[in-house]
Amino acid sequence: MAFALGDLARRVGARVHGDATCRIEGVAPLPDARPGTISFLANPRYRRHLAATRASAVILAEDDLGGCPCAALVSAHPYLTYARVAQLFARPDPVLHGVHPSASVSAESRVDPGAWVGPCCVVAAGAVIGPGVQLGPGCVVGEGVEIGAEGRIGARVVLCAGTTVGPRVRIHPGAVIGADGFGIAEEDDRWVKVPQLGRVRIGADVEIGANTTIDRGALEDTVIEDGVKLDNQIQIAHNVLVGAHTAIAGCVGVSGSVRIGRRCRIGGGAGIAGHVEIADDVVITGMSLVTKSIPRAGVYSSGIPAEPAGRWRRNHARLRRLEALAGRVRALERELRALRGTARGTDRGEE
Amino acid sequence: MAFALGDLARRVGARVHGDATCRIEGVAPLPDARPGTISFLANPRYRRHLAATRASAVILAEDDLGGCPCAALVSAHPYLTYARVAQLFARPDPVLHGVHPSASVSAESRVDPGAWVGPCCVVAAGAVIGPGVQLGPGCVVGEGVEIGAEGRIGARVVLCAGTTVGPRVRIHPGAVIGADGFGIAEEDDRWVKVPQLGRVRIGADVEIGANTTIDRGALEDTVIEDGVKLDNQIQIAHNVLVGAHTAIAGCVGVSGSVRIGRRCRIGGGAGIAGHVEIADDVVITGMSLVTKSIPRAGVYSSGIPAEPAGRWRRNHARLRRLEALAGRVRALERELRALRGTARGTDRGEE
Amino acid sequence: MAFALGDLARRVGARVHGDATCRIEGVAPLPDARPGTISFLANPRYRRHLAATRASAVILAEDDLGGCPCAALVSAHPYLTYARVAQLFARPDPVLHGVHPSASVSAESRVDPGAWVGPCCVVAAGAVIGPGVQLGPGCVVGEGVEIGAEGRIGARVVLCAGTTVGPRVRIHPGAVIGADGFGIAEEDDRWVKVPQLGRVRIGADVEIGANTTIDRGALEDTVIEDGVKLDNQIQIAHNVLVGAHTAIAGCVGVSGSVRIGRRCRIGGGAGIAGHVEIADDVVITGMSLVTKSIPRAGVYSSGIPAEPAGRWRRNHARLRRLEALAGRVRALERELRALRGTARGTDRGEE
Repeated sequence: MAFALGDLARRVGARVHGDATCRIEGVAPLPDARPGTISFLANPRYRRHLAATRASAVILAEDDLGGCPCAALVSAHPYLTYARVAQLFARPDPVLHGVHPSASVSAESRVDPGAWVGPCCVVAAGAVIGPGVQLGPGCVVGEGVEIGAEGRIGARVVLCAGTTVGPRVRIHPGAVIGADGFGIAEEDDRWVKVPQLGRVRIGADVEIGANTTIDRGALEDTVIEDGVKLDNQIQIAHNVLVGAHTAIAGCVGVSGSVRIGRRCRIGGGAGIAGHVEIADDVVITGMSLVTKSIPRAGVYSSGIPAEPAGRWRRNHARLRRLEALAGRVRALERELRALRGTARGTDRGEE
Repeated sequence: MAFALGDLARRVGARVHGDATCRIEGVAPLPDARPGTISFLANPRYRRHLAATRASAVILAEDDLGGCPCAALVSAHPYLTYARVAQLFARPDPVLHGVHPSASVSAESRVDPGAWVGPCCVVAAGAVIGPGVQLGPGCVVGEGVEIGAEGRIGARVVLCAGTTVGPRVRIHPGAVIGADGFGIAEEDDRWVKVPQLGRVRIGADVEIGANTTIDRGALEDTVIEDGVKLDNQIQIAHNVLVGAHTAIAGCVGVSGSVRIGRRCRIGGGAGIAGHVEIADDVVITGMSLVTKSIPRAGVYSSGIPAEPAGRWRRNHARLRRLEALAGRVRALERELRALRGTARGTDRGEE
Repeated sequence: MAFALGDLARRVGARVHGDATCRIEGVAPLPDARPGTISFLANPRYRRHLAATRASAVILAEDDLGGCPCAALVSAHPYLTYARVAQLFARPDPVLHGVHPSASVSAESRVDPGAWVGPCCVVAAGAVIGPGVQLGPGCVVGEGVEIGAEGRIGARVVLCAGTTVGPRVRIHPGAVIGADGFGIAEEDDRWVKVPQLGRVRIGADVEIGANTTIDRGALEDTVIEDGVKLDNQIQIAHNVLVGAHTAIAGCVGVSGSVRIGRRCRIGGGAGIAGHVEIADDVVITGMSLVTKSIPRAGVYSSGIPAEPAGRWRRNHARLRRLEALAGRVRALERELRALRGTARGTDRGEE
């Protein structure tokens, strides 16, 4: 596939700078790009690679145009423009129809004739697989599960009984949706299982990463609203609500009954304690721990950046004695006040 | 299914308040409950929903009875009572018998006629599957694995060679039990594999969450005692012992050769360093890091709650210079002492 | 299998102390060892078990020889020597050939006749499975994937299209290699998918733990160099480079475009922010957060060890007011300076 640069610009809504007839056959990163490819500059960290790039064109912001050695697509949002351009060059996922002979599909399920059920898949009674859905090898679709049109379900995904999935959802390999939540009640130093009676409901255009887990609700449903993007190895506990268009990076743990607003961004490895409510448009940076509700939009943090271990050990030793240090400051303030009294007394005595 | 409220009370050992003949057909959360359902109030956070609930009855503590607009089941442990009630209404898991034709079962394994081996399961030589065991689709049961009576093994669980599982154990989809521990020895800047020769032994009534991993022992076995409850995406390394009735929340990492006592509770995202010993009845809060043995029961923490990023940055900048701040306090103390000496000298001089 | 101690010594390059003809039939931990077994002492924490061991021989360092009640293999690197000895006693993994009848293997793939494709595996077009490779049950090998000689791929591993795996690589169950990276670009409060066009390339002698995920590159490839050892439940994002012979413990999250040097060691639960570069021979301790590049070898930390929750709460409350405490110290310094001025003035006045 190849496009003239001007044609690309028209398709993605960017402005051409330089030769609009230049022929683009693919995308490439700035340092490795060869003639015939288009690259992009979105992160200032990589500006140093601009001058020497051999790309035929670069997608960049107006401000970077001065340093560009070749043609350009100028955009107010270079990364977004790059995404659009890359989509034009991406090989489309293969689309198959029918049921692989090694799959076990219940006669009481409904599989759209335009859907594909891959090898070794298992589809239970009452399941409804929508048009265009592609089920990768080894997927397990439980009783009564519904998958909306054009779903792309990767290899070995498990959708437990009752899960509903909106249209155009992508789920990557190994994800487990709708397993029991962690509901246990104490009785005489033992645990009694609390039945997990809710389901998982996933909206439209959601993406769910590899080996991510989303538990069914205890009583209410666990809900992932439209357009949510979840990275790999995220754990979403029972009864959680993730608001529309929120993006969560890898390894985040969200405890039970948490409500996350719309358009939030949660950094990798963050943890959110149970029953917390987070407003719309909240940003939580990586490895932060949220223990209380966040009622207002803004950026929130508690991750501590690593430093050389010796220095960290000394600072941390001080942190452990911070209460004592504060006491010493209090004592100093007291003594100084007393001393000032004396000093003034002295002064006055001399007058 | 439906019960009179008085009948429910008798079955779960609670006291009725109000109309004992009122008919209960299901359980529901306080805010969404309709007439004919029973709800519960266990977390004070949700007390505000009590007055307006449309439930026919609520399970609650004596103290909350005053605010209850309907009938009630009064209990000293409302959440436990709710668990019992919900179990009465939960649809029982289906119980099947036999071997699905797509499963591969070794002729040298022993599968109880009352057990079920689901589609695409693989059962190796020497495996013993007990009565009533239900193996979900795609499970892999290695050589010599033993699964006790009534086990509920979810879809795509892997039990590696030699793993033993006690009766009534639940393992949720995607869990991997008995993979090699992370044993490597250094040789000239390279790593030599340390063979992992132990097994995993799991007691009775254990529950293991989705995509959780438990490694086989290096030499001794990794042991999960009776009644342990593990949430999703937990990593238990080789040689670990988890004492009976301990509960561990999601995303916890337990390093090699750790010994955790009985009835402990470990919050989500916590990490435990290698070779540490933790006493019985220890509670570790979410995202704490345990680096030393904890010889006494109690609550232990090191997670830092998130705050607005600007304030956090300033506080953290101070934390990085805490050693210096302590030095300044020391200097102040010294100077003040000197000054006080001078002041006293001055005083004395004036006497 | 049994060896004379002297024979063992010769095979692993250690020195015998005591009876070289003593017969060794297996390995065992110090406290549980029976006569006929060899044990080892590598971690000083376990020295207390040495005197009472019933092992016939112990692998240990010169310095521990004095406390050894039996024969010994003396080694400068006892853990490495133990690894070599244990390898001699470990039952070799079974090696099979052929394709299980329940596997789905594309006619357009190439499976070496000396390789084994297990039950319910799926091998796509263009895949190349090298000699001696053992694919466990339920593996999914995508289009064009190449697996080098002698690979040991555990149950239910997913290798997405285009992944290349070097010789002698071990991948444990449930790992997902080559799923899409988390690439999203913002457009009017929604997310647009950035196509993930790169692959994953894995070098020789790499080991990858259970349920670990490694994403394909966005544009460049994600690269795991020779001899890298990855524990369970690690998340490696797109475009990451992990340098040769680096070892990463469980539950670590590595964000996109990170470059990790050679021979690094990263402790469990650590997190590395996007685009960071880490030099060779860097050690990062458990649960640290790396937010900036680390240009020099050394040990880096930011994990806070847990302490009793009451004390932690008080210290943390101070941490939250550290900015204020620093302000009070500044004020004290100012006042003291002023006071000293006064005091000097007083002194001078008295001269």
